[in-house]
Amino acid sequence: MGSMISNQHSAKLFVASLPFDRRLYRQDIACSVAHVRMLARQGIITDKEAELIVMGLGAIREELDKGTFPFRPEMEDIHMAIEARLTERLGPVAGKLHTGRSRNDLVATDTRLYVKDAATQTVTAIHDLQSALLDVAQANLDVAIPGYTHLQRAQPVLFAHHMLAYFEMLHRDCARFRAAGAEADVMPLGSGALAGVTYPLDREFLAQELGFSRISDNSLDAVSDRDFLVSYLAAAATCMMHLSRLSEELVLWSSAEFAFISLGEEYTTGSSIMPQKRNPDMAELARGKTGRVYGHLMGLLATMKGLPLAYNRDMQEDKEGVFDTVDTLQATLGVFSGMVRSIRVNREATARAAADSMLLATDVADYLVGKGLPFRQAHGVVAQVVRHAQSQGKALNELSVEELQRFSTLFAPDVTTITLEAALAARRGHGGTAPRRVREALAEARKRLEACRG
Amino acid sequence: MGSMISNQHSAKLFVASLPFDRRLYRQDIACSVAHVRMLARQGIITDKEAELIVMGLGAIREELDKGTFPFRPEMEDIHMAIEARLTERLGPVAGKLHTGRSRNDLVATDTRLYVKDAATQTVTAIHDLQSALLDVAQANLDVAIPGYTHLQRAQPVLFAHHMLAYFEMLHRDCARFRAAGAEADVMPLGSGALAGVTYPLDREFLAQELGFSRISDNSLDAVSDRDFLVSYLAAAATCMMHLSRLSEELVLWSSAEFAFISLGEEYTTGSSIMPQKRNPDMAELARGKTGRVYGHLMGLLATMKGLPLAYNRDMQEDKEGVFDTVDTLQATLGVFSGMVRSIRVNREATARAAADSMLLATDVADYLVGKGLPFRQAHGVVAQVVRHAQSQGKALNELSVEELQRFSTLFAPDVTTITLEAALAARRGHGGTAPRRVREALAEARKRLEACRG
Amino acid sequence: MGSMISNQHSAKLFVASLPFDRRLYRQDIACSVAHVRMLARQGIITDKEAELIVMGLGAIREELDKGTFPFRPEMEDIHMAIEARLTERLGPVAGKLHTGRSRNDLVATDTRLYVKDAATQTVTAIHDLQSALLDVAQANLDVAIPGYTHLQRAQPVLFAHHMLAYFEMLHRDCARFRAAGAEADVMPLGSGALAGVTYPLDREFLAQELGFSRISDNSLDAVSDRDFLVSYLAAAATCMMHLSRLSEELVLWSSAEFAFISLGEEYTTGSSIMPQKRNPDMAELARGKTGRVYGHLMGLLATMKGLPLAYNRDMQEDKEGVFDTVDTLQATLGVFSGMVRSIRVNREATARAAADSMLLATDVADYLVGKGLPFRQAHGVVAQVVRHAQSQGKALNELSVEELQRFSTLFAPDVTTITLEAALAARRGHGGTAPRRVREALAEARKRLEACRG
Amino acid sequence: MGSMISNQHSAKLFVASLPFDRRLYRQDIACSVAHVRMLARQGIITDKEAELIVMGLGAIREELDKGTFPFRPEMEDIHMAIEARLTERLGPVAGKLHTGRSRNDLVATDTRLYVKDAATQTVTAIHDLQSALLDVAQANLDVAIPGYTHLQRAQPVLFAHHMLAYFEMLHRDCARFRAAGAEADVMPLGSGALAGVTYPLDREFLAQELGFSRISDNSLDAVSDRDFLVSYLAAAATCMMHLSRLSEELVLWSSAEFAFISLGEEYTTGSSIMPQKRNPDMAELARGKTGRVYGHLMGLLATMKGLPLAYNRDMQEDKEGVFDTVDTLQATLGVFSGMVRSIRVNREATARAAADSMLLATDVADYLVGKGLPFRQAHGVVAQVVRHAQSQGKALNELSVEELQRFSTLFAPDVTTITLEAALAARRGHGGTAPRRVREALAEARKRLEACRG
Repeated sequence: MGSMISNQHSAKLFVASLPFDRRLYRQDIACSVAHVRMLARQGIITDKEAELIVMGLGAIREELDKGTFPFRPEMEDIHMAIEARLTERLGPVAGKLHTGRSRNDLVATDTRLYVKDAATQTVTAIHDLQSALLDVAQANLDVAIPGYTHLQRAQPVLFAHHMLAYFEMLHRDCARFRAAGAEADVMPLGSGALAGVTYPLDREFLAQELGFSRISDNSLDAVSDRDFLVSYLAAAATCMMHLSRLSEELVLWSSAEFAFISLGEEYTTGSSIMPQKRNPDMAELARGKTGRVYGHLMGLLATMKGLPLAYNRDMQEDKEGVFDTVDTLQATLGVFSGMVRSIRVNREATARAAADSMLLATDVADYLVGKGLPFRQAHGVVAQVVRHAQSQGKALNELSVEELQRFSTLFAPDVTTITLEAALAARRGHGGTAPRRVREALAEARKRLEACRG
Repeated sequence: MGSMISNQHSAKLFVASLPFDRRLYRQDIACSVAHVRMLARQGIITDKEAELIVMGLGAIREELDKGTFPFRPEMEDIHMAIEARLTERLGPVAGKLHTGRSRNDLVATDTRLYVKDAATQTVTAIHDLQSALLDVAQANLDVAIPGYTHLQRAQPVLFAHHMLAYFEMLHRDCARFRAAGAEADVMPLGSGALAGVTYPLDREFLAQELGFSRISDNSLDAVSDRDFLVSYLAAAATCMMHLSRLSEELVLWSSAEFAFISLGEEYTTGSSIMPQKRNPDMAELARGKTGRVYGHLMGLLATMKGLPLAYNRDMQEDKEGVFDTVDTLQATLGVFSGMVRSIRVNREATARAAADSMLLATDVADYLVGKGLPFRQAHGVVAQVVRHAQSQGKALNELSVEELQRFSTLFAPDVTTITLEAALAARRGHGGTAPRRVREALAEARKRLEACRG
Repeated sequence: MGSMISNQHSAKLFVASLPFDRRLYRQDIACSVAHVRMLARQGIITDKEAELIVMGLGAIREELDKGTFPFRPEMEDIHMAIEARLTERLGPVAGKLHTGRSRNDLVATDTRLYVKDAATQTVTAIHDLQSALLDVAQANLDVAIPGYTHLQRAQPVLFAHHMLAYFEMLHRDCARFRAAGAEADVMPLGSGALAGVTYPLDREFLAQELGFSRISDNSLDAVSDRDFLVSYLAAAATCMMHLSRLSEELVLWSSAEFAFISLGEEYTTGSSIMPQKRNPDMAELARGKTGRVYGHLMGLLATMKGLPLAYNRDMQEDKEGVFDTVDTLQATLGVFSGMVRSIRVNREATARAAADSMLLATDVADYLVGKGLPFRQAHGVVAQVVRHAQSQGKALNELSVEELQRFSTLFAPDVTTITLEAALAARRGHGGTAPRRVREALAEARKRLEACRG
Repeated sequence: MGSMISNQHSAKLFVASLPFDRRLYRQDIACSVAHVRMLARQGIITDKEAELIVMGLGAIREELDKGTFPFRPEMEDIHMAIEARLTERLGPVAGKLHTGRSRNDLVATDTRLYVKDAATQTVTAIHDLQSALLDVAQANLDVAIPGYTHLQRAQPVLFAHHMLAYFEMLHRDCARFRAAGAEADVMPLGSGALAGVTYPLDREFLAQELGFSRISDNSLDAVSDRDFLVSYLAAAATCMMHLSRLSEELVLWSSAEFAFISLGEEYTTGSSIMPQKRNPDMAELARGKTGRVYGHLMGLLATMKGLPLAYNRDMQEDKEGVFDTVDTLQATLGVFSGMVRSIRVNREATARAAADSMLLATDVADYLVGKGLPFRQAHGVVAQVVRHAQSQGKALNELSVEELQRFSTLFAPDVTTITLEAALAARRGHGGTAPRRVREALAEARKRLEACRG
C-alpha cells in the first residue's frame, strides 16, 4: 500500500538543536543581558553599546514570549537565532555580544539555569503530592487494611500508615532534587570555549546577576560537565520508581478483587468496547512512564561515556531527555496530587479484609514468647496451629482454647485478647502502625512538610 | 528572576496520545477501510453502509494529508479523532465502524503496519550507506593504513578492508531489521479487546487487504504483545552501536594527529569562537544519539516488565520511543551515506603512518617461524629486537642483518623482503587484507548488496 | 566498628579474565585441537608435533574436567593458562600451538561456540516450559476466569487460553534464540589479531571440525564483532520480560484476594516471622531477575559504544554478563517448568469470579448490534444499563427485561441467552477463547512444539 | 561435540542468597549482638541469655573470619545460617535471638551498614586518585598541550589544567558518595516484617550501638526502601563515566599519533601475537567496566519498578549488582591511582603539538577586538586568514603583517606578540589556564583535598 512513513530529516536538520533548545530562550537572554552589563562595567564595551544590546534583547524576548519571533530553518540553535535577530535589529554592534564567551560556556550556563529552576518546581510539585497523601491519610485515620509482603496478607496496618510510607519516599526525593539543583548552581560563564578567556571578565558579578551561588573552578571541566543533569535524571528515576509503586497499588486496590478504593471519575477512563469498565489509566500510564525516565537516564550516561575533554557535539544530546523528564515528572506529580485526593476508601471491603484472622498469627507467636517460649519455637507452634485451622476451614480466632492447647500448653483463655485492634495498638514503637503512633507521625509529617516548604 | 519553566500539562493531556499517535493516521484509516469492507462481505453491515464509511474515511484521509483535519484538544487518540470526524460527516452510521473490533486490537495493528514499513525503510537506508562504503573503498583501493588494536598500531591493513568491516556490520543489521519486520507481520485484528469477538469476521481477508502474511493465534497475546517493538529497538541499538564506532573513527581520523581523512565541508561545522575549527559534528552527534536509542530500548523493556495480561495503559508508552528511534535512524543513516561519500583520504598522511616499520613486527616473527622457530619463541625474539630498535631510535627496517643476528641466528639477508607490500599481500586467506583478496571481497559485497536490494 | 569491607583487588587481578573465562576451557581446547590438526594437514607443523600437542591438550582437558588443573594467580586468561600448562608438559614444541592465530580470533571463536551451545540449551529449556504450559492448560480446560485489561475484569476467557498466550510468547522467544545462535555460527579463526594471517590456513576445515556453518568474511570485523552477544542478551531480556509478566500473574493469582491458584509447596517459602505465610518467592525472584538481565544487555551496549576497530580490551567485559544471563535464564526457565506444572487451580474461586455478570456487558452491546443498533450507540446504551445496575446493587443478569427496555426497546426476552457459556462460545474466530477453538489451539500448539523440538 | 555448558542450578539454589549475602556476615553479627544486648536491657530476655548468645555469636564470627564456618547447601541466607549455627552451639536459647525482629528489617540494616562502609571506602579511594592527579599535575606544570573540542585542536591549555579538570569531577563524586552514605545512615531495626513489633524495643540504643545517626520513621517504608542503593549506584555510574573519559584520553595520548604520554609498564600489557605492542589495557578495561556499572544501576531500577509495599522477594536481587559495583569501583580507582602516577609526559611531542599556530586563532580574533572590531566580525576576518594560511601551507605565525593586512587593516606589527606563552598567560580569570592561575588552583585543590580527608 505504499510507504506510510516519510523521511522528514535532512543533514541540516540533523545538527540543528533549535527545535528543542528554543525552550531555553529566557535563560539565554538572561545570560546575554548579564554578560553585556558586565562587559560594560569592565570597560570591554561602552555603556552605550550595552544599553543598545540590552534593549534589543528585551525586544527579542518579547517577540519570543508572544510567539512572533521569526524562526528560520537555517538557524542552528537558540543562541545563534537570537544573535542573528539582534544583528538584524542593531547592525554590527550586535557582534560585540559574543565577546569573551563561547557557545560552550553559554549553553552550559543556560542549561544550569534551567535545571535549577526545574529542580525547584519539581520539589514544589512533590510537596503538593505529599500534602495530598497527608490529607487522604488524615481522612481515613480509622481504616485498617492488611499489610502485605510478597503480596500475601501479613499483618494489619493502618491505611494512613501506608500513605505515610509514600510520604517518606517523596521526602527523600525532595532532598535529591535539591541536591541536583545545588549541583547545577555553579556558573560556567567565563570559561570560554574550553580554556578561559583573554578578557578581564567579572565572573562573580555575572554569577550574582544570574542568581548563581558560585563560579566554576576549571574551564575545561566547566564546559564538559553534565553531572548535574545525570543527578537530576537519577533523582527523577528514583521518584518515578516510587510513583510506579504507588501506581501499582492504586491499580491493585481498584481491582474487583481488592476493591479497597475507588478513584475519582476524572482519574479513570472508559473502554472503547466494554461499557462497564472504569480503568485506572492515569496510574497505569504513570507506571509506564517510569520506563521512559529510566531510558533518559541510561541514554545520557551512555552518551557521556568515554568522551574526551572538552566539549564534544555528542553533548547536544543532553537536553531533550532532560526536558522530557522534567515535563513527565511535573505532569505525573500534578496528576497524582489530584488522583490521591480523589481516593475514596471502600470501608466495607477494607474492614472485611482486615478482619482476616491470619493477619494475627505473628501476634499469637509473640503471645507465646510472652509466656516464655523462645521466638523460634513459638513460630513453629503457630505454624502448626495455622495448618490445623486451614485444614478445618476455620479462622484462627474460631479455634477454641482447648484446640490451641493441643499445640502448646502455654495457650490460656487470655489468647482471645489478640484482636485486630490489639495487634495494631501493640506496634507502638517509633515507626510502627499503632493508631496513636500514626497520628503522631502524621502531625510530625505536616510539620516537616511546612518546614520544607519554608 | 522568576520561574522560567511553565507547567504545560493537565490531567487531560496526561492520557492523550493524539499528539504522537496522529502519525499513525494512514495506518489507522487503512485498517478501518479494510475492516468495513470485510464487515460488508460478511453481511455484518450492508454494502451501502460500507460504501458510505469508506468514502467518508477517504475524505478524512485527504484532510489529514492536507493538514486541514480539525484536531480538537478533547480527542484522546487518533482512532477516536477519526471516528468522531466520521460521525460529524455521516451521522449514526459511523457508529458501525467499530463493530467487532476494539482499540486494543486496532492500535496493535496500526503499530505493526508502521513497524513493517519502518523496517523496510531502515533497510533501504542501510543499503544506501553500504553502497557508499563500497564506493569509498573502491575509490581508495590503493590506500594502506595502520590497523589498530587497543588504538595501538598493530599491522597494516587496506583502508578498503576497514570500510568493508562496516559493510559486514550493516549486513547483519539488515538481517535483524528484516527479522523485526517479519515479527511485526502478524495481524491482530479480530482479537477484540482481549478475548476475540462475537462476530463472524474474515480475518484472513483482512490480513490480505492490509498486506499481512499471517494472523495472530491467541487473542490475549495479540493485544498485549510488543515483542516486535523490542526487536526493532534492539536492532536499532545494535545498528547505532556500529555507527558510533564508525563515528569514533571518523572523529579520530579527522583529528590533526591522525589526519587520515577530511570530511566534506557540509559534514563539518565551524566554531562560534575559534575561526580555524572544522568540527566533525555530524559524526559526534551520531555517536551521541546512540545513547538516545539505547535509552528507548531500555525504556520499553522497563515499561513492559511485570505487566499482567492483557492490555494495560502503560503500553501506550510504547510508541514515542519507537517513533523517535525510527526518525533518528533514518536521519543518521541518511547523513552517513553522504558523509561517507564525502570522505577524502589524505594519502600523504596515510602513507606516512602505514610506513611505520613497527607494523611489520608480526611478520618478522612469522619469518622466524618459517625458519623453524616455534611461534612463541619467535615472538620473544622479536620483542627483544623491537626494544633494541626503540632504544636506538631506529625503525625496525633500519636494523642491519648483523644487528638482527645478535637476537637470532635465523635472521638472514632475505629479512629485507619483509615490507609493507609483502605484509599486506601475505594475508591472503579468506577475510584477509591482501589487496587481491580485498578486491574480491569488494566485488562479492557488491553482489550481496544487489541480491539484498533485490 | 571498623571497616567491614576489604579491598580484594590488585592491579594484576584487574586485567585477569581467568576467574570467569575458565568456563570456556572446553571450547578453548576444542579450538586448539582443531587448529593443530589443521596446521599439520597444511604442513605448517609436522604430524608428530600435532599428535604431541593434541595429546597434551587432551590430558589438560582431563585435569580441568577433574578439577586438578593447577591454576596460578599469574595466569591472565584461560588461553594462556592452557598454553603455559602445555609448555610445562611438552617443552618448546608447545610454542607452535599459537602459530597463525591470535588471542583476538581465538577468544571470539571460543565465545561463539559457547553462545551456539547456550542458545540450544535455552531453546530446550523453553520447550520444557512450553510443554508445562500445555499440560496445565489441558488439565484445566473447563476453567473460565475473568480476562482483564487494566487489571479490571473485562470479558471471560478460558484459563487454558490464558496459558496459551504465554506459549505464543515463548514460541517467539525460541525463534529469537535460534537467530542469536545462527549469528554466533560464523567462525573467526584465521582472522589473526585483526588483519588475517600469513600462513596458508584451511579455514573451511577448521569450521567443519568445530561445527561452524560458515567462516567470517572480514578479519577486522571478525575480531571486533560482538553482535551475537547483544542478540542473545536482547532475546534473553525479551524472554525475561515474558516470564516477569507470568510471574506477576502467579503472584496476583496466589494472593488472598484473587485466590485463583495455589503453587506447589516447593515453589513457595515461609516467613521468618509470620507463621501463616506461603510466599510465591520463586515467581517474585524471577520477576526481580528481569532487571539483572536488562542490566546486562544495557551494560554490553554501553561497553561497545564508540569503540574504534579492531579489538579493544574493553571487550573483555563482554563475557560475565552473558554467562550470568545464560545461568539466570536456565535456572529461571527450569524453575518455571516445575512451578507451572505445580499450579493447582482453585475452581471455586475461579468459578465465582467468572460468574461476575459485568463480564457480559460487551455481549449485551453486541446483542443490540444484532438487533440493528450501530455499535457505538449500543455501547452507550449498555453503559447506562451498567450504571443503573450498579446503583441498584444488582448484577447485570438480575435486571428484568422490563428494566432493560427502559434503556432500549430492542431488548427482548432472548437477552437471557447471554450467559458466561454463550459468551465464551461466541468468540469462536481464530485466536478466540471459545472452548472448541481453544482445544484446537492446544492441539495445534502441541504439534508446533513437536515440530520445533524436531 | 556435545554440550559444553552444564546446568548448575536447581530450584533450591534459585532462591538461595547465601552465595552472595555471606559477604554481609560481619554486619549481620554486629546487628545481632546489638539486638541481643538491647533485648536484655529492655528485660525481654535475661542478661544471662544475652551473654550466652553474644558469646556464641562471637565464636561464630571467628569461624567466619577464619573460614571454618560450616556452610551447608540447605542454608538459604546468611541470617539463617548464623542462627542455625547458634542453635547447634546453644540449643533452644538461640531461638530468642529473633525476638522482635524479622529478616526484612535485618537484611535492610545489614545492607545499610555495608553501604555506609562502602561509601566511606570509595571516598578514600577517590581521594587517593585525586592526590595522584595533583602530583602528576605538579610534576608537569610547565607542559602545554593543545586543548581539544570535538577532538580538534582548539586553544592551548596546561597539561596540569587538564588534570585539574578531573580533580573537579572526582570532587563532585565524593560529595555524591557521601550523600549516598548519609542516605544509608538510617536504622530500620524495629520495623519488624512491615508493621513494627509488639515488643518495647529501644531503637535509639540499637542505632547508637551500630553507629547509625537516626532511626527510620515508617516501618513499611523501612523494609521496602532501597533508595540508598540506587543513590550509591548512580554515584558510581557517574564516577565511572568520569573515569571512562580519562581512560579515553589516556588511550588517545598513548597512541602513536598523539604520543603525549607513556604509561608505566605495569599498566600496559603485551600482545599474544604482535611483539611490538604496549597496550593501555587497564585504561581500556576501566572504560569497558563503565558499561557494567551502568547495567547494575539500570538493573536495580528495573527490579524495583512497580513493586507494591512492603517487602517482595524481587528485592533480594538488590545485592549482587551493588557488591560488584563496590568491587569494580575500588579496583578501578586503585588501579587509576597508580596508573596516573605512572604517567610520563613526552615533552617533545607535547611541545610540538602545542606549537601548532592554529591554536592561536582565537587570540588573533581577540587581538582585532582589542583594536575595536566587534567580535563576530573579527571572527570572520580570522576565518579568512586561516583559510589563506592553509591554502599557502603556512602556519598562522608564518604570515607577514602585510599578508595579514590584506584581511584587515587593523593588523599591526604587534600581532607578533600573540604566542603560545601569551595565549596561556592571557587566560588568567578564575578557572582559566594561565600558568599563574593553574598554580593557584593546584594549591587550592590540595587544601580542599586535605580538608576533605579531614
